[in-house]
Amino acid sequence: MKDGAQTAIIGVTGYAGAELARLLLHHPRLKGMPPVLAGRLDEKDAARGGIPLTEIHPHLAGGPGSAALKLQAFSWKLLAENGVKVLFLATPHEQSREWVPEALARGLRVIDLSGAWRMTEAANRAIYAFKDDGTTQAADIQAQAVYGLPELHRAQIAGAHLIANPGCYATSVILPLRPLAAAGLLNLDAGIVADAKSGVSGSGKAPTPKTHFMYAADNLSAYGVFAHRHTGELLEQIGLHSDQIVFTPHLLPIPRGILSTIYVRFRQPQTRTGLLQIYHEFFTGSPMVRIYENALPQIQYSVRTSYADIGFQVSADGRRAVIVSCLDNLLKGASGQAVQNLNVMLGWGEAEGLE
Amino acid sequence: MKDGAQTAIIGVTGYAGAELARLLLHHPRLKGMPPVLAGRLDEKDAARGGIPLTEIHPHLAGGPGSAALKLQAFSWKLLAENGVKVLFLATPHEQSREWVPEALARGLRVIDLSGAWRMTEAANRAIYAFKDDGTTQAADIQAQAVYGLPELHRAQIAGAHLIANPGCYATSVILPLRPLAAAGLLNLDAGIVADAKSGVSGSGKAPTPKTHFMYAADNLSAYGVFAHRHTGELLEQIGLHSDQIVFTPHLLPIPRGILSTIYVRFRQPQTRTGLLQIYHEFFTGSPMVRIYENALPQIQYSVRTSYADIGFQVSADGRRAVIVSCLDNLLKGASGQAVQNLNVMLGWGEAEGLE
Amino acid sequence: MKDGAQTAIIGVTGYAGAELARLLLHHPRLKGMPPVLAGRLDEKDAARGGIPLTEIHPHLAGGPGSAALKLQAFSWKLLAENGVKVLFLATPHEQSREWVPEALARGLRVIDLSGAWRMTEAANRAIYAFKDDGTTQAADIQAQAVYGLPELHRAQIAGAHLIANPGCYATSVILPLRPLAAAGLLNLDAGIVADAKSGVSGSGKAPTPKTHFMYAADNLSAYGVFAHRHTGELLEQIGLHSDQIVFTPHLLPIPRGILSTIYVRFRQPQTRTGLLQIYHEFFTGSPMVRIYENALPQIQYSVRTSYADIGFQVSADGRRAVIVSCLDNLLKGASGQAVQNLNVMLGWGEAEGLE
Amino acid sequence: MKDGAQTAIIGVTGYAGAELARLLLHHPRLKGMPPVLAGRLDEKDAARGGIPLTEIHPHLAGGPGSAALKLQAFSWKLLAENGVKVLFLATPHEQSREWVPEALARGLRVIDLSGAWRMTEAANRAIYAFKDDGTTQAADIQAQAVYGLPELHRAQIAGAHLIANPGCYATSVILPLRPLAAAGLLNLDAGIVADAKSGVSGSGKAPTPKTHFMYAADNLSAYGVFAHRHTGELLEQIGLHSDQIVFTPHLLPIPRGILSTIYVRFRQPQTRTGLLQIYHEFFTGSPMVRIYENALPQIQYSVRTSYADIGFQVSADGRRAVIVSCLDNLLKGASGQAVQNLNVMLGWGEAEGLE
Repeated sequence: MKDGAQTAIIGVTGYAGAELARLLLHHPRLKGMPPVLAGRLDEKDAARGGIPLTEIHPHLAGGPGSAALKLQAFSWKLLAENGVKVLFLATPHEQSREWVPEALARGLRVIDLSGAWRMTEAANRAIYAFKDDGTTQAADIQAQAVYGLPELHRAQIAGAHLIANPGCYATSVILPLRPLAAAGLLNLDAGIVADAKSGVSGSGKAPTPKTHFMYAADNLSAYGVFAHRHTGELLEQIGLHSDQIVFTPHLLPIPRGILSTIYVRFRQPQTRTGLLQIYHEFFTGSPMVRIYENALPQIQYSVRTSYADIGFQVSADGRRAVIVSCLDNLLKGASGQAVQNLNVMLGWGEAEGLE
Repeated sequence: MKDGAQTAIIGVTGYAGAELARLLLHHPRLKGMPPVLAGRLDEKDAARGGIPLTEIHPHLAGGPGSAALKLQAFSWKLLAENGVKVLFLATPHEQSREWVPEALARGLRVIDLSGAWRMTEAANRAIYAFKDDGTTQAADIQAQAVYGLPELHRAQIAGAHLIANPGCYATSVILPLRPLAAAGLLNLDAGIVADAKSGVSGSGKAPTPKTHFMYAADNLSAYGVFAHRHTGELLEQIGLHSDQIVFTPHLLPIPRGILSTIYVRFRQPQTRTGLLQIYHEFFTGSPMVRIYENALPQIQYSVRTSYADIGFQVSADGRRAVIVSCLDNLLKGASGQAVQNLNVMLGWGEAEGLE
Repeated sequence: MKDGAQTAIIGVTGYAGAELARLLLHHPRLKGMPPVLAGRLDEKDAARGGIPLTEIHPHLAGGPGSAALKLQAFSWKLLAENGVKVLFLATPHEQSREWVPEALARGLRVIDLSGAWRMTEAANRAIYAFKDDGTTQAADIQAQAVYGLPELHRAQIAGAHLIANPGCYATSVILPLRPLAAAGLLNLDAGIVADAKSGVSGSGKAPTPKTHFMYAADNLSAYGVFAHRHTGELLEQIGLHSDQIVFTPHLLPIPRGILSTIYVRFRQPQTRTGLLQIYHEFFTGSPMVRIYENALPQIQYSVRTSYADIGFQVSADGRRAVIVSCLDNLLKGASGQAVQNLNVMLGWGEAEGLE
Repeated sequence: MKDGAQTAIIGVTGYAGAELARLLLHHPRLKGMPPVLAGRLDEKDAARGGIPLTEIHPHLAGGPGSAALKLQAFSWKLLAENGVKVLFLATPHEQSREWVPEALARGLRVIDLSGAWRMTEAANRAIYAFKDDGTTQAADIQAQAVYGLPELHRAQIAGAHLIANPGCYATSVILPLRPLAAAGLLNLDAGIVADAKSGVSGSGKAPTPKTHFMYAADNLSAYGVFAHRHTGELLEQIGLHSDQIVFTPHLLPIPRGILSTIYVRFRQPQTRTGLLQIYHEFFTGSPMVRIYENALPQIQYSVRTSYADIGFQVSADGRRAVIVSCLDNLLKGASGQAVQNLNVMLGWGEAEGLE
């Protein structure tokens, strides 16, 4: 496919949606093709032809293109009239479940940022279950979904019609662990520990007691211990049983960014050089992963980029390692990854519009 | 010993020293006996009779007693003339090594907040080594030192002349692990992970690239991986070999507080009730430890208190637990602990002046 | 009046209420007399005899007294049975308007932290208007209210039955300006500017778009320009017409504290010495105000204290000054001030329980 | 001039220098022409051919071009060999004073981000004085300097050889005031107040007591009252006497951004519509200024953009206004402005590389 492809976003009011709009507006292959923004509007906003994007996200003001952009009342007709080919869903998983079947039926290619279609095991998927069931249809659609982590599934993504865009925490744990698991290095009996810390934007835009400034500022708290809904993604994508990894998320007093500190034991002693080689080989041709040769990544280095950063330290006896991975939860953890998937789907350079 | 005991602080210019001065000024047993503050002054400050404490720490202004307090030029004569009985050292370990021998020789009881005398194993102690050696003398003094964690060594502290006040990270890891280790519950072959996060005051008052606001704010970084100098304390006090625990500190973008997330595997399945009982029994008579029955502690709950907070979650199969401990690095992690040791040494209520 | 007086708090769930409970629990005159905590409970909480305070505010756990404290279902009977003499209202002004008449009728002395009774001019008061009017009664009660700024109205407060505890912004502007206005120094034709900045706790505990961490963090915003509801307090207490001062509040990305930068022009040139003398004379006998001799106060110095800090700089020509005042919005700006009023009302030392 | 022009940066190690490198690397007119980075290196770094940029600023890693970039040992020969046409100085003013004369003599066009050449009045300029004097030469060069605020001096900048890039605070005060002053609306007798607040990056990269996280975090402080070195710029560019404006900077606990709250009185009552028209007319053709029609700008909206944002509120009587301006101190306040000047100098679109 050549340049251009009309896109649409449902769910532009949230943080990931805003980042996605920003990325698509500046994408070199989409010049003059701003995304169609659609959602459920109340009567008043529908009557005035939609809500200006800069009214929702004042920081997006300025620059050609953004001023005229409006969030319009969603209808399939709106998408059809605008010639939309790729639909991004930055919506809660319940809404994704609702919209995806018809979108696929109408021939749209869908990149879904929610958790609705990320997992194939029934036990893992339960957490994103269809309320009013429809199990058969869901299973049918699940079968079409490709887990949208290009570093692992590039070929399948290229031809996919439904991309399940990975969770932010999951991305930060799968990318550093998958190469070591694939190489058979890990002592899984000892168990892996993934201690993850995320900024507040990961908790969404709804004002809640936990997103209140007074709760998050000057604080750190662990949550979802032994129970976080991203755990299933880790297990399926790394290839682990649930007792082989403990994953604990924490809420950091910063707006954006994830840092995961991952503790592994090896079956045989390893060297720094050997591990670097494994990572470099695994990520050859993956422009959005940066391996740190001599240092550890920090959250600051990756925030506001679409990179995933990986560094590590090996113990003196070579039997253990501490791996640190960092990424921006809204970019490589959500919208940057979505655009990377778009690039792969349309045969463009994987890093286009992301640097 | 009855009420009162003249105290002195060397090293009041740092964060821990300031907290110590504040605590001693408000201690109910020390009314009308403000601490003597001493240090090395330049000529100008010595000439004007010392530096007013409120000039160094403006937030300590106000209230009776603090206005008149001055940091004076140190001399043994100054301490003697003021009838000092207990000397607090909030100094770098090199200075502590230098001052302690004479202080003990002069009959002072010393509470040393530095790392100089915390460890007995030569390998662990090396990091705080005496530059201009004097090994024999050091060994002699080390033999008198008691590790100042009242929850573990209350009886010895009561009679001690030299207290090695524990490290802040060490306290946050030893307190939650020692009860489980003592009960023989831990599967040490699988290894323990202690993932610790600390606010910036733990890095000291000196302006450095790493304490710059632009480095720490909106950031998180791991450091000292497999190499932090508090590791030796963990090993000796919990009773572990160095390959049985990995301890990784991180720098949090907050002023104060430590949260340690600790991952253990058990030799036999455990229940929440059973573990709660073990903790309650171990910490009976320990007023500065709070066990969380139904929730996890957060940094905010312990900051500006002298408590150590401990909570945990057990996995469904009972074979693993995630333990979260929190404390204020300047209080239970330094000066609050020092006052707690003072209380034990003088036979006062352990929590006096700390609530 | 001698030691002791049973107190009660309505509205302990908010930030000011929590600070008030903490202060009363540790007040030296109220040992063994913890405040009665009352409010509207749902059935479940009423059935279990109330909500433990530490469940609402985990950071208040620890220490004797606080563990047993519960928020109970409000009734006049509850207050009577507990012998309550002084009632603190940390409630929205609508609720204060509702409760105060009966509380006064029952002989309680009331300290109301809301804005309900702060202003006497009808135009200023309008903003806190009684919805379902009852104008006559309100006017009657308003006549009994004393503006609870001890530095201005100490004598009246001593005998008052209804204290209108000042607004946090208002306190930070009235205290530095009243002495200069009273001395007739200000050129009011040129206009005074009060540029105020407050931490997020000033916006209350309810999760709203403006208290979301993502809104407040890394940000600064002005609001309520020419329209903030504290303006009336400034005018009445300093003695100004509304075109003689512009007051602009801003939302700071910090939990607590207010800094107001105030710009004045003088009718005659002034000196630093002369102004210091005016401030010292005005605040003689006012232990909760700190005048800075040679520096400017900063928010950090006053946060977690009940002091109001004042410093200033005079222009070279002596005709203008920039005055900086700082205080903790929850303490001198709310609960500390309320306890100061309690001390004055009961004839205790004005600073007791506040240092 | 057509596309391209070789640039060089001296002073890339600081915050402004890093932003400048980033902007030039991504400038659409400078593809394949990365800036030459030069500075004074120690022997070791000179011997290894310079310091990789990503070693100094890890967050700049990734993307084509940046990986190979090195900070090299400065020499005029280096600049000549690389065909440098435009030299950016992101250095302290003492170094700018030292380098500019020779740079001009060698035919380079210079954009100096320091304060060295910003002011023409001797009294104002004194603060950036040449230590080892050379007054004559300095006066000669000062005469060539153009104040680099394109919104005021676009035509002169186009032909200039030496641009004095404005101060960050100055930009945030001049842009909103100049249009009103030029229209003769301001009552200057009443005096203007400019209350400015800046993030910590404005204080530079050197670790000092005031850039320590513990000083800046959870704090706000005023500084440089009646004495800030940007004041002279305000006076000269707006056209004011020093007693007609008070400018007070404050240090905000955020990394980036300036918000200035400006208080003016009018000679005649004004309306919102009238003032909007004045601003729109003044800034016609100025793509980097955004006028807010119905709201006030906030720091967050402008951070990480090169825009200056302006909004205001008029009092009910039309005689006073509160104007709020925001910008990113490192972009419109430094490096973005420098690139804007580059664009004007080379006849490119003024906003190129800045959106």
